Amino acid sequence: MSEVIPHWLTKQAGLAPEQTAIEYVNGNTMSFLELKETSQRFARQLAHIGVQKGSHVGILSNNNAAMVIALHALSYLGAVSVMLNTRLTGEELNYQLNDAEVSLVLTSDKLINDIEQMNLSVSVKTFTEITGLPESDVKLMTELYLDDPFTIIYTSGTTGFPKGVIHTYGNHWWSAIGSALNLGLSAGDKWLATLPIFHVSGLSIFMKSVIYGMPVYLLEKFDEMVVHDAIMSRGVTIVSVVTVMLQRLVKLIGGERYPDAFRCMLLGGGPAPKPLLEKAKARNIPVFQSYGMTETSSQIVTLSPKDALNKIGSAGKALFPAQLQVAHPTDDPVGEIFVKGPMVTKGYFKKAEVTKKTIQDGWLATGDLGYLDEGGFLYVVDRRKDLIISGGENVYPTEVESVLSGMEQIDEVGVVGKVDEEWGQVPVAFVVADGQVTGQEIIQYAQNYLATYKLPKHIYFVDSLPRNASNKLVRTELVKWLERMKK
Amino acid sequence: MSEVIPHWLTKQAGLAPEQTAIEYVNGNTMSFLELKETSQRFARQLAHIGVQKGSHVGILSNNNAAMVIALHALSYLGAVSVMLNTRLTGEELNYQLNDAEVSLVLTSDKLINDIEQMNLSVSVKTFTEITGLPESDVKLMTELYLDDPFTIIYTSGTTGFPKGVIHTYGNHWWSAIGSALNLGLSAGDKWLATLPIFHVSGLSIFMKSVIYGMPVYLLEKFDEMVVHDAIMSRGVTIVSVVTVMLQRLVKLIGGERYPDAFRCMLLGGGPAPKPLLEKAKARNIPVFQSYGMTETSSQIVTLSPKDALNKIGSAGKALFPAQLQVAHPTDDPVGEIFVKGPMVTKGYFKKAEVTKKTIQDGWLATGDLGYLDEGGFLYVVDRRKDLIISGGENVYPTEVESVLSGMEQIDEVGVVGKVDEEWGQVPVAFVVADGQVTGQEIIQYAQNYLATYKLPKHIYFVDSLPRNASNKLVRTELVKWLERMKK
Repeated sequence: MSEVIPHWLTKQAGLAPEQTAIEYVNGNTMSFLELKETSQRFARQLAHIGVQKGSHVGILSNNNAAMVIALHALSYLGAVSVMLNTRLTGEELNYQLNDAEVSLVLTSDKLINDIEQMNLSVSVKTFTEITGLPESDVKLMTELYLDDPFTIIYTSGTTGFPKGVIHTYGNHWWSAIGSALNLGLSAGDKWLATLPIFHVSGLSIFMKSVIYGMPVYLLEKFDEMVVHDAIMSRGVTIVSVVTVMLQRLVKLIGGERYPDAFRCMLLGGGPAPKPLLEKAKARNIPVFQSYGMTETSSQIVTLSPKDALNKIGSAGKALFPAQLQVAHPTDDPVGEIFVKGPMVTKGYFKKAEVTKKTIQDGWLATGDLGYLDEGGFLYVVDRRKDLIISGGENVYPTEVESVLSGMEQIDEVGVVGKVDEEWGQVPVAFVVADGQVTGQEIIQYAQNYLATYKLPKHIYFVDSLPRNASNKLVRTELVKWLERMKK
Repeated sequence: MSEVIPHWLTKQAGLAPEQTAIEYVNGNTMSFLELKETSQRFARQLAHIGVQKGSHVGILSNNNAAMVIALHALSYLGAVSVMLNTRLTGEELNYQLNDAEVSLVLTSDKLINDIEQMNLSVSVKTFTEITGLPESDVKLMTELYLDDPFTIIYTSGTTGFPKGVIHTYGNHWWSAIGSALNLGLSAGDKWLATLPIFHVSGLSIFMKSVIYGMPVYLLEKFDEMVVHDAIMSRGVTIVSVVTVMLQRLVKLIGGERYPDAFRCMLLGGGPAPKPLLEKAKARNIPVFQSYGMTETSSQIVTLSPKDALNKIGSAGKALFPAQLQVAHPTDDPVGEIFVKGPMVTKGYFKKAEVTKKTIQDGWLATGDLGYLDEGGFLYVVDRRKDLIISGGENVYPTEVESVLSGMEQIDEVGVVGKVDEEWGQVPVAFVVADGQVTGQEIIQYAQNYLATYKLPKHIYFVDSLPRNASNKLVRTELVKWLERMKK
């Protein structure tokens, strides 16, 4: 039976009207009461141009409060938000708009000119345009049915066409509750949002905000100086980051120490190199590794406060309402990771077949490889599709990257498989170096830690690595670079 | 769609095996791992004598760990626990056993002799007897379906026959989550359980324990010295109490002060006299008034930490997942309280008609009277059936009790209506006095605060007031006393 709760923003505005919902870098704030009233007004303005229960509306914006308001406004109408990645090309956007049956796209003043060049197949309006419209006298939602869809986000899916992951209100609710049961709930918390809100990692922070009654410190984009300052002197207690952000913050902190009130650096976006985690630990940064994906409405496996500093390299255990299994048909403890729980999507939009194949009896096949230690802690090894098979041996790119990144002179590294006549595939490394170092020196260093078949057969020095909007390494792009080099 | 979560005790034992689940007065503790293993063993022993999925098993015991273990054991079998009040007569018990279709009653060594005198209609076994049985090799539940029934508790229902309130796993889950979203979740919490576990107020503490991973300090019965000591020196941070317990604790604390870590005295069981709340505030006791009933799986309306000391007399606002309305068809702001939320029971066992009448579109008609102030805070006035109508005027017993209890010499007071030829009903008061005071002096005192029609027309001095197992005043018993006096 679908549970019904009061509309969460209305509820929070009733419980804690004066409490800060959003804090900006310039020090301005918006309270929950203001957020509610602004969102409800925006909803009535959207209703004026025909948005209604069941409408699919795209949100195409970099982080700002307007997109959070739009999101809540759509929930007041019972409409579905399709969160669009601002890095997509016009063609990619049109694919998603068409697939998700979007009737209107909302965007920011900053992006509108670029978007107009794109020839999108649906009508586009800026947030500012909407706020200039008259308000329709419509009945807004006072309750939320947890089984109703709220957002659709396309998986970065680098193979095949992207699929729209449907998140119900319940998925977001359970994600927020699962995290609270792990991290605890403190009246003094302030969560910094620098991950893109069009990804579930950023979006989920704003769901937690209304459910917990917690301020979010909102950044338009990642800037390590601003994040560092926010932790040091703006009362931020939790930050969600991906590996490269942590790398930059660790570099920046130097001999300083974060305030004691700073209690969690929630690390997602794939396995992190162990040397980086060791460095963070040495600097007393409470890194909580986690594991999750769009389909799990953000983290579903996370280290707990008591294990964060002891279980380095592990993503932890499944959150309280969730379950975790590793399927390893052979003796090899490494196998595909399966997860289950009420934060897991019920499926992909209009993709019944794929849904049925991917989610069976509630268990989501993640396509990721990992293993459990004897204490039940998860170690994520790699994406299954990134696995390099060299002469019949499994080479996990993350393991090789982790070793190389331990070398003083190496800033960033990405490892992929290259087609090889003799071995089928061999690992090669793309390196962003800090200082003078040769490929030979790198391979000599790696020989101390890696079996021969895992050693990169080539080191390519580059200025930067390809990353997506979440700053996650895009290995498929490295594969394309290799192909281009062949020509 | 019914959500599925891992079995909560198995899960907590996996997340925090060493964490204390139950702490006894003698200092002994039981960890979550031990609680899980003991409960699973008990489940297999129950299976040996035929308890299985869908069985209804009575638990008839005063507070002890064995009944908590039995409760979890039944959940491992998918059986339903019928929580029985130890104060009931044999006849009353047989009514509930028959109505709830109970096939077996579990009880303690202490009670077995008394129970054997009662001629119960079903087989009775002690917890100790069960632990002597062989274990059946049955498959235990690894998951919980939130829509499945877990417990049945009969409402004290003093008019008509008692009704069995069904609580699903989801009801208990949402109750625990609603409370956490109000009080916060801290790794240092320890909740003291002195309320009977056969009532939902006591039971709910053990649900929170497994869901939060929080130790419970377990008392067999209320003893103000032991509770005081537990707060002062045993690390207890939260205590659930009813009015009379608070009264005794306030008396005991004298000029002392509870430690800063003690953060919540959760007060339920009906409206509390304002003078008592003022006294508690003067002694820096963080009293959080709350409102709830068996049908709402314990509290559903509660003061928040920030309002606890400012909104004295109010029960607060509906918990985050819950809603609250007061139906007042006339100008009088006082009306019947209605509540809705996923912690509200889906209905009474085998009482479809009553269920349909009491719960409409999810809204539970509570039968209680109250009003909302302009900030939306609930003030519970009285049970509707306790209302005294005197010459057409409404007299709320709680208001009169609250005034009288402000008098130095009065320890406890209960007010009910007495049939009167002239006025229909008049209020009369039963008083437990501390020191020398006459009825006339009491009425003179009350005249300073109450309109004439609210003044008690009689003061009866008694040694103690009738209270139920939760220590709540039983006004229907006072009415019986009045009737007996007439004869």
